[in-house]
Amino acid sequence: MNRVDLPVELGERRYAVHVRRDALPELIERTAACASTGRVIVITDETVAALHAGPFAEGLRARGLHAPVLAVPAGEAHKTLATVSHLYDRCLAEGVDRHTPIVALGGGVIGDLGGFVAATLLRGLPLIQAPTTVLAQVDSSVGGKTGVNLPHGKNLVGAFHQPAFVFADVAWLATLDARDRRAGLAEAIKHAALAAPALLDRIARDAAGLIAGDPAALLPIIADAIAIKARIVAADEREAGARKLLNLGHTLGHAIEAAEGYGELRHGEAIALGLRVAARLSRAQLGLPAEHVARLDAALDACGLPGDWRRHLRPEVFARVARDKKIRGEWVDTILLRHLGDPTVVPQPITGFIEAVTALGDDPAQEENR
Amino acid sequence: MNRVDLPVELGERRYAVHVRRDALPELIERTAACASTGRVIVITDETVAALHAGPFAEGLRARGLHAPVLAVPAGEAHKTLATVSHLYDRCLAEGVDRHTPIVALGGGVIGDLGGFVAATLLRGLPLIQAPTTVLAQVDSSVGGKTGVNLPHGKNLVGAFHQPAFVFADVAWLATLDARDRRAGLAEAIKHAALAAPALLDRIARDAAGLIAGDPAALLPIIADAIAIKARIVAADEREAGARKLLNLGHTLGHAIEAAEGYGELRHGEAIALGLRVAARLSRAQLGLPAEHVARLDAALDACGLPGDWRRHLRPEVFARVARDKKIRGEWVDTILLRHLGDPTVVPQPITGFIEAVTALGDDPAQEENR
Repeated sequence: MNRVDLPVELGERRYAVHVRRDALPELIERTAACASTGRVIVITDETVAALHAGPFAEGLRARGLHAPVLAVPAGEAHKTLATVSHLYDRCLAEGVDRHTPIVALGGGVIGDLGGFVAATLLRGLPLIQAPTTVLAQVDSSVGGKTGVNLPHGKNLVGAFHQPAFVFADVAWLATLDARDRRAGLAEAIKHAALAAPALLDRIARDAAGLIAGDPAALLPIIADAIAIKARIVAADEREAGARKLLNLGHTLGHAIEAAEGYGELRHGEAIALGLRVAARLSRAQLGLPAEHVARLDAALDACGLPGDWRRHLRPEVFARVARDKKIRGEWVDTILLRHLGDPTVVPQPITGFIEAVTALGDDPAQEENR
Repeated sequence: MNRVDLPVELGERRYAVHVRRDALPELIERTAACASTGRVIVITDETVAALHAGPFAEGLRARGLHAPVLAVPAGEAHKTLATVSHLYDRCLAEGVDRHTPIVALGGGVIGDLGGFVAATLLRGLPLIQAPTTVLAQVDSSVGGKTGVNLPHGKNLVGAFHQPAFVFADVAWLATLDARDRRAGLAEAIKHAALAAPALLDRIARDAAGLIAGDPAALLPIIADAIAIKARIVAADEREAGARKLLNLGHTLGHAIEAAEGYGELRHGEAIALGLRVAARLSRAQLGLPAEHVARLDAALDACGLPGDWRRHLRPEVFARVARDKKIRGEWVDTILLRHLGDPTVVPQPITGFIEAVTALGDDPAQEENR
């Protein structure tokens, strides 16, 4: 299997996610087809620029396009308004017009940053998402969310801006650290837990190949995880309903990530912890079977994702939960599972949520057997 | 006539423009009805804060709402990313959540700034436009455009974000300088030239009352001008077609405003010059009758708006035209009139546009008679 095309059904903003293996010429061709005024701007980070931007930009230039590569320093610490402001100036200096596509070539940070620039510069430019990490391919590049961090917290500024298309080449994933591939799989596991329990078991079974970066293992798993995200986004573009389900494990995951200090835990590692807590809370509040908690744990364990969730539930984590941007007054919409594949939104008072999490037993499967 | 309600028909984003006279209690009531989590944030400038924010915020607080007033320094020079960043921090410090409405109480700068904050903070908050100037009431508060200036030019960053409602109280207009009321009428004249020639003649006839700030004169003219804008926006929310017509006089007007240095000419004064040039270009290129040019001039003259367009067409103005954000490659979409009330989009090469403008005669009506 070398190619899967997945539609994101959003009416007049409908677009495709092209999942590919070693298909740079196709990306060049599709990008050139969007560049109606002879210019394309590639936004990337310095790490990805050194690995992948050169041949891409050369291919665009060989087609007669003006194709500057704007590389920002790598890392979440640079997902700021200062970087956005710098990118605005660079884009304008390169002669951007309203028909100039922005290609966001990189991981989640670049997708969010490049997407926000495309959403707001000249009140909106065409956007091409070219995600180069597992996390960006299975999650952040699909659905039109863009974002920037503020001193108060992560992604506190952003816009919805759907891309013209997403191009996810699994060959790019071979250049990642194994730790980053593992962390990215946490979002695929989240999608599987929401909608496809069988995918959870396939991830556990194929984990060695996935972690090693084997494209033959990665392509079908990534395509199936994207398909789940695409269906949920199509049902609820602006997060008024079904899309909230994608926050499974994220309220606590984000708070843990922030409390540890960005860079200590990978985003996916924090989400893995959040997923484990969400499963246990689902068991306590909705009776999720212990066997389902164990299947989720097994997939996370197989991917080498952290399990010591209790150690991370420090007071600062709960303080950050109370400041989450999804909070509505004193209430938080928690995402819980009745069964694997059967999630629901449970609004609860923040104080009650914190008490319930604090009271969780260490191992629901063992408790069951006592 | 004390109240007119105008719908902006945008499907699920449909909203109303409430044109009123001395109706602060109604604004307080409508705002409170939007504040589902007990908070409202009022964004305004220091000038408007001193005039109008106090009784509004007190009325909100009397209903038990947390209603901080965030006042930024007045003027276009403060419509920057730095001000936006400051407002983000202030809003977060005030405990904003995704359901907290932002009220933009002020002129066009505040509508653009407050609108951009509402469009992007937490990926989008409810927005209430409460325009306090003629220009903001008849034009910038309706249609969902928000924007921020960059060193490269005006409104180079922005987003489309439709308000929950617009509340335009003509009583506020009495506190403006007469020069600002006159300048704002240029946008009403533009709307009339696009779609309602009879409104043009009413503006000319009632100019004394309009300039003096007489609410009885202002309310019907402002309501009719808004109705034109609302219809055009409803036909084309994202400026793909009909909405381009609203740029009548604006490509040159923006360039003249910028070349003179913001603050020298009011925006509406620059637009008046742009409208005069557009009429003459329409005559040269599409045969707009000289009598129609004269009717447009008469309305602008009656409002005391500048007529010395030729003096303003300096080389820097044309250099700025070439950098306009609406430029598509080397082409500019000029908006011309076949007749008053019958506009059309005429794409032309920038160089050809500049040559044609440079070649315009001083007075097409006189030329006709030679």
